[in-house]
Amino acid sequence: MNMQGYKRPIRYGMVGGGHTGFIGHVHRMAAALDRNFTLVAGALSSDPKRAHESAADLGIAQDRSYADFNEMAARESRREDGIEAVVIVTPNDLHAQPIRAFIEAGIHVICDKPLCTTLEEAVNLHRLVSESGRVFVLTHCYTGYPMVRQARQMIADGEIGELRLVHVEYPQGWLATRLEDTGERKSAWRTDPDRSGPGGCVADIGTHAYHMARFVSQLGVDSISAQLTTFVPGRRVDDDVQAKLRFENGARGILWASQVAVGHENGLRFRIYGKSGGLEWIQADPNCLWHTQLDKPKQMLSRAGIGGNCASLRWSRVAAGHPEGYVEAFSTIYSEAAEAVRAWQNGKRPGPDVLHPGIDDGLEGMQFIDTCIRSSANCGEWTGLA
Amino acid sequence: MNMQGYKRPIRYGMVGGGHTGFIGHVHRMAAALDRNFTLVAGALSSDPKRAHESAADLGIAQDRSYADFNEMAARESRREDGIEAVVIVTPNDLHAQPIRAFIEAGIHVICDKPLCTTLEEAVNLHRLVSESGRVFVLTHCYTGYPMVRQARQMIADGEIGELRLVHVEYPQGWLATRLEDTGERKSAWRTDPDRSGPGGCVADIGTHAYHMARFVSQLGVDSISAQLTTFVPGRRVDDDVQAKLRFENGARGILWASQVAVGHENGLRFRIYGKSGGLEWIQADPNCLWHTQLDKPKQMLSRAGIGGNCASLRWSRVAAGHPEGYVEAFSTIYSEAAEAVRAWQNGKRPGPDVLHPGIDDGLEGMQFIDTCIRSSANCGEWTGLA
Amino acid sequence: MNMQGYKRPIRYGMVGGGHTGFIGHVHRMAAALDRNFTLVAGALSSDPKRAHESAADLGIAQDRSYADFNEMAARESRREDGIEAVVIVTPNDLHAQPIRAFIEAGIHVICDKPLCTTLEEAVNLHRLVSESGRVFVLTHCYTGYPMVRQARQMIADGEIGELRLVHVEYPQGWLATRLEDTGERKSAWRTDPDRSGPGGCVADIGTHAYHMARFVSQLGVDSISAQLTTFVPGRRVDDDVQAKLRFENGARGILWASQVAVGHENGLRFRIYGKSGGLEWIQADPNCLWHTQLDKPKQMLSRAGIGGNCASLRWSRVAAGHPEGYVEAFSTIYSEAAEAVRAWQNGKRPGPDVLHPGIDDGLEGMQFIDTCIRSSANCGEWTGLA
Amino acid sequence: MNMQGYKRPIRYGMVGGGHTGFIGHVHRMAAALDRNFTLVAGALSSDPKRAHESAADLGIAQDRSYADFNEMAARESRREDGIEAVVIVTPNDLHAQPIRAFIEAGIHVICDKPLCTTLEEAVNLHRLVSESGRVFVLTHCYTGYPMVRQARQMIADGEIGELRLVHVEYPQGWLATRLEDTGERKSAWRTDPDRSGPGGCVADIGTHAYHMARFVSQLGVDSISAQLTTFVPGRRVDDDVQAKLRFENGARGILWASQVAVGHENGLRFRIYGKSGGLEWIQADPNCLWHTQLDKPKQMLSRAGIGGNCASLRWSRVAAGHPEGYVEAFSTIYSEAAEAVRAWQNGKRPGPDVLHPGIDDGLEGMQFIDTCIRSSANCGEWTGLA
Repeated sequence: MNMQGYKRPIRYGMVGGGHTGFIGHVHRMAAALDRNFTLVAGALSSDPKRAHESAADLGIAQDRSYADFNEMAARESRREDGIEAVVIVTPNDLHAQPIRAFIEAGIHVICDKPLCTTLEEAVNLHRLVSESGRVFVLTHCYTGYPMVRQARQMIADGEIGELRLVHVEYPQGWLATRLEDTGERKSAWRTDPDRSGPGGCVADIGTHAYHMARFVSQLGVDSISAQLTTFVPGRRVDDDVQAKLRFENGARGILWASQVAVGHENGLRFRIYGKSGGLEWIQADPNCLWHTQLDKPKQMLSRAGIGGNCASLRWSRVAAGHPEGYVEAFSTIYSEAAEAVRAWQNGKRPGPDVLHPGIDDGLEGMQFIDTCIRSSANCGEWTGLA
Repeated sequence: MNMQGYKRPIRYGMVGGGHTGFIGHVHRMAAALDRNFTLVAGALSSDPKRAHESAADLGIAQDRSYADFNEMAARESRREDGIEAVVIVTPNDLHAQPIRAFIEAGIHVICDKPLCTTLEEAVNLHRLVSESGRVFVLTHCYTGYPMVRQARQMIADGEIGELRLVHVEYPQGWLATRLEDTGERKSAWRTDPDRSGPGGCVADIGTHAYHMARFVSQLGVDSISAQLTTFVPGRRVDDDVQAKLRFENGARGILWASQVAVGHENGLRFRIYGKSGGLEWIQADPNCLWHTQLDKPKQMLSRAGIGGNCASLRWSRVAAGHPEGYVEAFSTIYSEAAEAVRAWQNGKRPGPDVLHPGIDDGLEGMQFIDTCIRSSANCGEWTGLA
Repeated sequence: MNMQGYKRPIRYGMVGGGHTGFIGHVHRMAAALDRNFTLVAGALSSDPKRAHESAADLGIAQDRSYADFNEMAARESRREDGIEAVVIVTPNDLHAQPIRAFIEAGIHVICDKPLCTTLEEAVNLHRLVSESGRVFVLTHCYTGYPMVRQARQMIADGEIGELRLVHVEYPQGWLATRLEDTGERKSAWRTDPDRSGPGGCVADIGTHAYHMARFVSQLGVDSISAQLTTFVPGRRVDDDVQAKLRFENGARGILWASQVAVGHENGLRFRIYGKSGGLEWIQADPNCLWHTQLDKPKQMLSRAGIGGNCASLRWSRVAAGHPEGYVEAFSTIYSEAAEAVRAWQNGKRPGPDVLHPGIDDGLEGMQFIDTCIRSSANCGEWTGLA
Repeated sequence: MNMQGYKRPIRYGMVGGGHTGFIGHVHRMAAALDRNFTLVAGALSSDPKRAHESAADLGIAQDRSYADFNEMAARESRREDGIEAVVIVTPNDLHAQPIRAFIEAGIHVICDKPLCTTLEEAVNLHRLVSESGRVFVLTHCYTGYPMVRQARQMIADGEIGELRLVHVEYPQGWLATRLEDTGERKSAWRTDPDRSGPGGCVADIGTHAYHMARFVSQLGVDSISAQLTTFVPGRRVDDDVQAKLRFENGARGILWASQVAVGHENGLRFRIYGKSGGLEWIQADPNCLWHTQLDKPKQMLSRAGIGGNCASLRWSRVAAGHPEGYVEAFSTIYSEAAEAVRAWQNGKRPGPDVLHPGIDDGLEGMQFIDTCIRSSANCGEWTGLA
């Protein structure tokens, strides 16, 4: 079980995440849970009044609340006790600039997904980050669930044989109506291509599903046949994605993500079938992993229970039968970020079991979006990634 | 609830279904449950010894056990107490000839799915049956479940609004290995294109899934983009189908059927989302229907429970909380067949709530198979039906 | 799988079960499914007009529709083609007299539960039936489910070790209000002690739960501490039973049956724990049996699936993944009744795997009711059976 | 949703909880998540070497790591920056002394359950704590789940009518064998009456179940009929509890707690039925609450979803569909403790929606244990609390 010894918490700042926002709050809890991070600075809002109020609410000293992330990068990088990492939780169109500013200031970056809004920008960021050597973490948080890790390891260990089918889906129903016209904030920017990029559903949750498929299967994707649909009249981006995937080893996959599937809150799920077994997992019940071996009854593996492997136990925080949830999964990504930062500070590379998504995943997510859009524009033609 | 008055049972004969076969046994139970049919004749096997032994086992008089279905059609049609209907439960390649023989002999036909092995043959059978005026029932049995009927009626009543997404899947795992090489009979003919036709999984269970999508949604399909795969090396037909569907009203669908999905026994399921609600049903738990209305909590409708509509109550046989299963669903198709035969005998047409699949569905199933095969051969090109 | 050869159907008559009744309809389907019985006579109602109309509806010849069960017993026993068995589906107070009449006429009896209304009457019936040597079947139908049989056999085979805990519950919610005042028929007689006997819930469903505990565990019960409650004001019998059980081997049990548990339709369930394993089954999902062995993950055994034993396979009618339900379970009791009648007719005893409940179970059920009532009257004092 | 503004974290110390212990780790995460507490001192083990190593691992300054809790109470109470609260996570026999020491030193106390080992001691502690006016929190953590709060509020609001049945159960299987003989630490002290008190299962998890029943129903318990069993030969305390409860309003309940129920990891669950509805919740799936209203279909309420009330929303940390777990529930108790401490520091009482268990619940839990033991010794005689 995960009961790491205490280490000095890493000082971090936050860009975006002012007080009424959901996602900033989640990041702060994820950072706090394992006591690996401490929040000391912020450019929490582009509105200076809101920024400073939020900072006060969050216990950030007044002189470290900035109205501007460039100023924050510049001044924090000069402080002896400056932030070691920044967390970027702004809408998609405001990822690239702060990434650039903080990487150039030598500060490690933890950034919400997707990486940015265009593939070209992604390629540039990938180069910048790679050359900088700094730690970059993209918060595809769902891969932090222990039973996702369990599944990945079981597949690596050959427990279901060579993969044949990799099905992943992510249905939500919250955008079944034109919520963006009601003044609701989360939907407003997500359905505005100027802020979210050209992808709607495909970018917001399709990338999570795609990353999950890649993370668990550990298979590369050769090509995609996708169909993006906008079901809600007047919406400016897609709200449903149906895609077929061809994996490098010949495996086939279906990816479905939707924001108009009434009855689903957040139904991320995978089902993977190999030559000699199958695995099923659903985010709504994340402590279970269903495993069937050829010619044996289906069994339910539970987090920290009988049959747990090192990959799931490494990130289990509490005993079997005590549910862990979303914040814990998110916190795993943060704690792996902390391991990476500490390794960097010691001139080392993190170990092979540090599995947080990074800049490669960020670029690949943008390739996924771009490929889906191109394929969809061509009647679902099979389209190679890149 | 369904507690029909007693009517004279319809005399029927059976082609195929000799004693060790699974499907013949199921048909006989389905025919018996509601006491609408009585078995009096049979050509139960192409092996005369086996045919006569099976007949004796089933209580069929010796002189009405035939070694040949042509002889059966001829002799039964001349008897005063001859069979009124025939049930055909042979492999796919032996559907067309007996259909022809019995229809031409003026005997109503109940036939297992799919209709036959080629689209051309299907077109001919469709013409023959249509012109004959005889009752023809194709046993897509899963649409007989009361909660499938409930869902269909709810959609017709607009309870989830105009449809946007129609997802149907049918995963099985029993053919994940080369079972057909072990002498197992059911897999042997299903994987032999000379007996099953050119489709494997797509014909055997893909057609069930397709019919379910059509039956519940009541929407026509414009075109299909399909990918058939044969995962098990050496297998002569497909064992997995991934298809995208475009419906006439703009709705989109995914159809997945597989025989290599280890961990699934018989996972037929649909999930349908409209403008104002969603419905989910899974055959493994057939007495439940999950219904979500926009902005209300998800609710579980149970067969014969609160919220049941006339369509489900019409075919509920027992009180809520007492599970009904596969044989009951199958029996509903049989009892609707009986209604249709009796209507015909009275010179009438069956009422609008007699919903058994018929010759149109048989032809459409063959069009579905053909379209999937053609689309798959063209890299999944969108292909119109027919 | 169960695909018995055909045998001449046993001629039966029915006492009670006129056309609008639920339970008569269920018995007739159960009798029909496996084609072991044919309905030829009836005293379907104490109202002659209703009796004859029902008989006509059910295809019973006019001269074999009786207004009186004594007349039916007398006349049928004199016919060459007279009924071989009678099915009694009247309210509890009308069990004893027809049992007596038909047993004395030499006709086998299949009777609804509980056996009768008083323990004294039960003792007399037990003597009469035992001495007669005739077949007597009490329709505790839930023990006919294949996975109940599977569990019983697993326990007999020691697969969960010596039993420690046997928990059984049977919550329903349909009597949470004073339904009996609305004219609803099923509730009217069940809550009338003159018709149901002194027990309400304890007799109607408590006996099912008790029989299930005994059937699956195969353990005798030493004593019971019970509390009967009437929650609905003005109701004349109990509508809730909470009982603790002490089994002969030292195992302990809880039995809960309720008719006021809003949200439950028919929640019969058992959970049994032994020294080395546990088993869980719930009637709403009857094709599953959950099995945990010490130090192994929980596994789901499915009817006719991997891990099925001879006891469940013997009464499986369709392949794994095709749900069987209540009528099938009920039909198993009927088919075992048929085996017993045929054995009797051949001067033999039925084999050890014919497990239908009989007159001993009928007496024990009445002892259970009586013991619960006495214990409850004494503040839940531990009270030995009978 | 719960996104409290930042407040200065409360300084706390810990008694017990040295590094390999599970429960200390859980308390520290619960304290950290909402950033309401900061760990600054500890007497983490009675073994000084282990205490100091653990302290170093946890980032506690060397001079605030104590080998003895009396010394810690004395010295911390004299520091200007001394701890404001102490967390006691020792075995049951080591609760009373530190509670006394810290309360007398004017330090607020958060203590693991049950309160202590004897009823007499509990009465004394209750007097001491009550007179001190200090905040006392007993970590019956499961009542911190948002959907438990939702259920409590719904009952208070009359949404299921006057209560009739309150069923609570807590099955575990981890002590089905003599684990305490293997050197496993958690089982060793829990099965040693010198350390755990006279109750085994009844104290360790029975009290959780009892508190849950009381918390959700808000009904007093009049009397209990209990049966404690020791199934594992040689074990010195009970490992199974079956109890019947009589509530003050006439409602009836069953409480079952077990440590030998193989197949259950941590199966805390309640099912509560009122005159007009029912509620069901299970800790393994804590974000759901099943609600049935008379004459309506069963519905699934989800945390932060449609139908959430103020009580559940107050402690929801993330959006619907993002599971919250055990640590979050535990953290709610901690955050309510922080509210109580801050109110005290401001000379106020916490608001009516601060619902953490306190010293009254601690005393009542000990009364529950004592009552169960006495009732069980008298053959399950109904025994009044006290």
